Parts: sequence; C-alpha cells; structure tokens
Amino acid sequence: MRTQVAIVGAGPAGLLLSHLLARRGVDSVVVEARSRSYVEHRVRAGVLEHPTVELLRAEGVGARMDAHGMPHEGISLLFDDTLHHIDFADLVGRGIVVYGQQEVVKDLIAARLRDGGTIEFEAADVALHGLTTDRPSVSFTDVAGITREIECDVVAGCDGFHGPSRQAFAPTVVERAYPFGWLGVLAEAAPTHEELVYAAADRGFALYSMRSPQVTRLYLQVPADEDVAAWSDARIWDELGTRLGGMALNEGPFLEKPSITGMRSMVAEPMRHGRLFLAGDAAHIVPPTGAKGMNLAVADVAVLADALEHFFHRGSDRGLDEYSATCLRRVWRAEHFSSYMTEMLHRFDPGTERGDAFGRALQLSQLRYTVSSRAAATSLAENYTGLPHGGIA
Amino acid sequence: MRTQVAIVGAGPAGLLLSHLLARRGVDSVVVEARSRSYVEHRVRAGVLEHPTVELLRAEGVGARMDAHGMPHEGISLLFDDTLHHIDFADLVGRGIVVYGQQEVVKDLIAARLRDGGTIEFEAADVALHGLTTDRPSVSFTDVAGITREIECDVVAGCDGFHGPSRQAFAPTVVERAYPFGWLGVLAEAAPTHEELVYAAADRGFALYSMRSPQVTRLYLQVPADEDVAAWSDARIWDELGTRLGGMALNEGPFLEKPSITGMRSMVAEPMRHGRLFLAGDAAHIVPPTGAKGMNLAVADVAVLADALEHFFHRGSDRGLDEYSATCLRRVWRAEHFSSYMTEMLHRFDPGTERGDAFGRALQLSQLRYTVSSRAAATSLAENYTGLPHGGIA
Repeated sequence: MRTQVAIVGAGPAGLLLSHLLARRGVDSVVVEARSRSYVEHRVRAGVLEHPTVELLRAEGVGARMDAHGMPHEGISLLFDDTLHHIDFADLVGRGIVVYGQQEVVKDLIAARLRDGGTIEFEAADVALHGLTTDRPSVSFTDVAGITREIECDVVAGCDGFHGPSRQAFAPTVVERAYPFGWLGVLAEAAPTHEELVYAAADRGFALYSMRSPQVTRLYLQVPADEDVAAWSDARIWDELGTRLGGMALNEGPFLEKPSITGMRSMVAEPMRHGRLFLAGDAAHIVPPTGAKGMNLAVADVAVLADALEHFFHRGSDRGLDEYSATCLRRVWRAEHFSSYMTEMLHRFDPGTERGDAFGRALQLSQLRYTVSSRAAATSLAENYTGLPHGGIA
Repeated sequence: MRTQVAIVGAGPAGLLLSHLLARRGVDSVVVEARSRSYVEHRVRAGVLEHPTVELLRAEGVGARMDAHGMPHEGISLLFDDTLHHIDFADLVGRGIVVYGQQEVVKDLIAARLRDGGTIEFEAADVALHGLTTDRPSVSFTDVAGITREIECDVVAGCDGFHGPSRQAFAPTVVERAYPFGWLGVLAEAAPTHEELVYAAADRGFALYSMRSPQVTRLYLQVPADEDVAAWSDARIWDELGTRLGGMALNEGPFLEKPSITGMRSMVAEPMRHGRLFLAGDAAHIVPPTGAKGMNLAVADVAVLADALEHFFHRGSDRGLDEYSATCLRRVWRAEHFSSYMTEMLHRFDPGTERGDAFGRALQLSQLRYTVSSRAAATSLAENYTGLPHGGIA
C-alpha cells in the first residue's frame, strides 16, 4: 500500500489530519489499534475552544456539533460560597462548545468514510520504519491477521501517550505529576446549571459539567493513589453536594463506572524526527483543568496539514521545518494555563508550599482578583476560549 | 504626656499616619528608636505606585516628589535577548514615580516639624501597655535618658518587622522565604535607560533601576546565604553586564557598601489587638520584586487615618473594626503579585519544581504571554502601578 501520509492513530488528531489533508489534495491512510466502536465511545474531553469550533465548521465537519453541541458563553468559579461568573462573551467576544470528543471522532470517521478515506481499525503490531529517509513506512497486522506495509513520504504520529510513534525516537521529554487525580462520573441526570462550574472548595476541587441536556459530567479531586472502590455512589453524590456548596444537583444513575484520571503534564521536544511528525497526546499531555488536551491536538494538525500541503504541492519544506517550534509555543502556553488553573483551584497538601496557610491565602487572593479584575478575567477567558491558531508568542 | 494616638516608628508608615491625622484634627506623638539622620538616610524602596503619589499630593507632601521624582510610564522585561516594554500609560492610564523612601521620610519629617508635630527620635526601651483597655500607653527612655510615658487612646504599631508592636500580642504569622536574595548596589553613575528593567537571565535575575539622574540602583539575584565579600566591584559590574544582556551601563563608584537583602514574605493576622493597630512592615513583608513594601505601608495608614478620624470625631468604631480585614485584602493581593513577579523572573534551583526544565519552560511561556497579551500586560500594569486605595476584592 502506498500513500503520501501514513497516520498512526484514529483519535481526533489523526482523523482530523486525514480529513484536512484530503481537502488539501493530499492522500493519507489511518491505522488504529482499537476498533471503530471503541474509539467512537471512548469518553474523554468535552470542551471545544473557539478556534477548534471554527476549524471544524470551516472544514465541513461542524454540522452535528452545531446541532447537538452546547454553546457556552462563560464558566463560573465557585469560592467564598459564591458563584462568580466569567463572561467570555463580554470579555473576549467568543465562547466554547461543549461536545464530547467521541462525537467529534464519530463525525470525522463518518466524513472520512463518506469521502473514500481509508482507516485500518484493529491494526496490531504497528511499527514505524525509515523515518530518517525520504521513504518511511508503517507496518502492521490488519484485522484479518495479514501483515501489511504502508509506504509513504511522511508519517504522522497521532497515537497518544502510549503509542509507538514517540518511542520511535528519543525526544527530550519533560514531565510533571500532580499529587491528585480526578474521580469522574457520567450521570444520567439533566444538568441544573447551564455552564461549567469550577469549585475551589475547602475539601478539594470539584468540577460541574455536562455532556448533553440529559447527561451531567462531574469530577472530584482525590489523592493520586486513591482506590476508586472507596467511593460508593452515595459517597460521590454526598461529596459533590458538599464541594459544590449548595448548588442544586440532579442525581441519576452512572452511565459508566467511576474512574480516576491522573493529573500530569508532559512535553516531548522536538515534535519531529526526520519524516515523522508527532501530534496531540503523542507529543504532549496537559492536566484536564484547562480543557486543552483535544484542542491542542486540533491545533497541531491544523499546522501540520498546512505544512504538508505546502510540502506536497509546492515542494516547500519550510512549514515542516517550523512545525515543532510553532506547535510548542502553543503547547507551552496551554501547559502554563493548565498549571495556572490547576494550582489556583486545587487543594494541596498542607505540608507543602502551595497547601500551607500562605499558599492557601495566595490562592484565595488570586481567585478574588481573577473575578474582580477585568484584565485578569480576560486573561483567563482568552486562554480558555483559545488563542487564535498560529502566532502564539 | 498625653495624646490621642501614640505612633511607634518614624518610617514612612508612622510619619505619614501622624501627618494624615494632624490634617484630620487628631493629635499624635511619634516615637522612633533611631536618630533623625539615620531614618533620613536609610536607603530602601524607591518606587511609588500611583495611589501613593496621589495621596502624597492630596495631603500636601508631594511638592519635592513632583520636583525631583522621576515619573515612569512603564517598565521593561528583558528575556529572549530582547527588551519588552510594558507601557503602563497605554494599558492603565497611570504610572509610577521613582523617588527614594528616604526622600519621602525627609518630606514627612519636615512637614510634621513645620506643623508643630512631635517626633521623639532615639527613644530607647519602647514598650506598649494596656492595649486591651481604652487607656493604652507607650513608655520609652528619651534621648536625654529620661523615662517617659505617652498616655493615649490608640497605639499605631509602625515599627517594622523587628519592632515591639507585633510582639506585644500573638497574631497568626504566616511566612515564606525564597532561597535567594538581592545583592544591591547604589552607583554614582547616570542611568542609561529611562525606566526599570527586570531581567530574567539564564544566570539569574537582575534589576536595573535608578534613584536620580546621577544615581543608578542595581540588583543581582544571589543565593540566600551568599557572602557579600565574594563580590568585588569588578565582579558585580561584570555579572550585571552579562545578565543585563548587552544594555549599555555607566559604571561608577558605589555610594554605599553592597549588601544582600533576603527575599521573604510575612503576614500577621489580624492587624489589630485591642487598641493597637499594626501598619506597614510590622504587619507584613513582601519580597521587593513587586515594589510594594512602602506602598502597602502607605495604603494601611490611609485606611487607618480615616478610621481614626471617624473614631475620634464621630464616635464610630466601624472603620477600626474593619481595618484589619480591609488592609489584609490589599496585603494578600500584594503578596500574590510579588510572588507572581518573583517566580516569573528568578532562576530557581534546577532540582526544584520551579527550576527544572518544565518549570523553566513555564516561566518562559508566561513571560512571552505577559508581553504579547494585552490582558496579561494590563494585569501586571494594574498591580504594579497600584490598585486604588480601598475596595480590593
């Protein structure tokens, strides 16, 4: 099999890249270790920042998002027993759309298949070859058990944190782990509040969010090594009620088992190795507090698609040469924003600098400042709703 | 001796309080452990934020400041080998005035003595009594060796970090120390740059500032336990040249011996004990990075003078009852701003979270964001030039 771009991974990054390339006249093949059903039902991120929304619309894959996504014009911060609204529309003239990552994945798979694209699901033993030559390839065992090879010009590593792409070379990896995670539940219960609520409670952070008019998505800060078995449904609702400080909550059955997600950051530099280009979680992880994970993946492939179009149609290496540096500016902006949100909102161990009396007082001052200064609120809003693609300082 | 308010300490806080009270028809006596000459030549802070400037003008002690102070409409951040200007005038419509603390002290002493105020310099053995009664007093041994007592209604503790006032009761004290200090020099050399330059250099922070058209004030980040003897004049100039990345510097003889100031924060809560009210460094210390120390002292006594006017002339306790909480909102805002500036600009140990590769990349992203986002630059500018007196969220 021969194509121009072999794309490893059918998450949002790989699928969107394949779609963008097709619209730019560049051929690609996507290989994915999981099944179509698995990736279409994998619950992950749910906040699309403004540049993501604009891109999906502009590239013809925004119709279902516009029909079913929930546009939000702000978020609230809950502290001092008060909901403080951050009005994105007023502050920066743009908002976000709440629309599950798995819905974006469904839309992109449908678009690729409609347009004759190739996605090899359930591909085993994916391996990358010849990355420092101008004829790299990707080998895999297909769903029928047949060993196959995709010869290509460029490989896009969109295979997430655990995929083989980043491991195919030795980028510098810098990491940070937080000493807590998020216990997340998806409840069949109508949201009682129209926008997301970030609660900086004495007992720890809680996030009130939703996925649809029928489904609430809720999170609780828990220790990183917490045993999820310690959390009965009743305890979860009780703790949510406490941390969300009197907000009315509709309770309902959980649609999937509660799970705990670690909170960490990772950045691999550079994001290129010869003809291999990393995008999305393969190159960087952010804690979920800033809702930036999927949006960074989208931003990466927007840059990569344009660079590849120039490479294939105009013979220009320039975009590819700038790819890593261009993306990393945005990645580090998102890492900084995510750490700012995480550190402002979570409860840290009282034995540490962020959790002692001094650190707590700084957090509270920062929270009060953020909701009382137009400049500070605008700074949060412009990061949350997403700085424009390209040109991040 | 009998007065309404006994003020312990003739720094900016105590002197300004005495002046403000006199203008509000409230009597006070100031006792100060040091000599007049000492306090008039003690080199400390040099940046007056906008509300400080406005207050000094409004209260009739701004003439020499306006004649000799250096109004600045911005500062610059030096990183990525580039000077990045933060234009306060454009961002927030107000600036700062560079005018040494000792000059403010001279102006206030002159005003008090002109107006018939009493300042007991070189007062030894200062002690506070009866603070939880409505007839407190302050005893001391005067310059002639005679033991005296000031009977009063209220005591203002403006005697700095080491003074007896805070030690007269047991406020909750929270502290933080940074693992570095500032080696400061005062050079007889005309400034080569019109505004302050905050340099986030690879080798550590440096601050370029000035005190007059003939005097440059320069600082270098050094380890907290550094021996100043290790720094010859030549080494200091050499290191300044390196960290200030190619800025032209005029060298000149040092006007006083180089010294190292520790970087720390301290907040005492509450700032009141019965009839004792703490103000300035007696109640809180900030690292110098945000230039907030003297300005917080000024803000404290502005609140206290109004509260005391209401107390003495209208019999209202309300201002005094709210004094501590009102001041602490501003104090914590300043502590947060100072820690933000300190953490963004200094080099931390590579073995720590702020100094490792991840922490350094976050610093750089924050610096780049601060100078490229109008919202972020405005946030810095509104804090640096000073939020209005009263009403800090």
